[in-house]
Amino acid sequence: MPPRKADVDRVFHALGDPTRRLILERLTAGPVSISRIAAPLQMTLAAVVQHVQLLEESGLVQTEKSGRVRTCRIDPAGLAVAAQWIANRRSTWEKRLDRLEDLLSDSGQ
Amino acid sequence: MPPRKADVDRVFHALGDPTRRLILERLTAGPVSISRIAAPLQMTLAAVVQHVQLLEESGLVQTEKSGRVRTCRIDPAGLAVAAQWIANRRSTWEKRLDRLEDLLSDSGQ
Repeated sequence: MPPRKADVDRVFHALGDPTRRLILERLTAGPVSISRIAAPLQMTLAAVVQHVQLLEESGLVQTEKSGRVRTCRIDPAGLAVAAQWIANRRSTWEKRLDRLEDLLSDSGQ
Repeated sequence: MPPRKADVDRVFHALGDPTRRLILERLTAGPVSISRIAAPLQMTLAAVVQHVQLLEESGLVQTEKSGRVRTCRIDPAGLAVAAQWIANRRSTWEKRLDRLEDLLSDSGQ
């Protein structure tokens, strides 16, 4: 099933924020609790929770609560949506360049 | 030369806006003038110019003025920066999963 347009919107909106990309970079090394994500960041825990929620809603992060600790991990679905959108744009654009090149080489003969 | 951090920030900020992604989608089919980009959009020409400027500053679009017409085309550099960032995150994350799998299969023996 191709990703819905809304998913692409949510994923790129989420990736558009440097703090959220920093959180994702942190999580690529392995699951981390929200309080450990928050520790090095210059913001309130509530602000970090909001960023994580937005990442979760976009399919970029999964979270799981165990007792009082919420652990976050990468959700591969969101990155796949973004990678696919970029790959499709590049592919359309490159095919157009190939056709242009063919036209130019035909007209040069 | 690896992309500077600032470039990644600019590219993802640019891609985070649905109008700017729409403009990029339009340009993958070929170069288009700013006024033709603006025609189907529900916004002023000035607003479209601002979006295009931001896309240009991010390395996602190149523009060229000929007389009174400014033509926009895809700049592959920006999409490459975004694709590379995503690919690096996925690769780090997948390598971690592979190591985890190895550990689990070792401990199962």
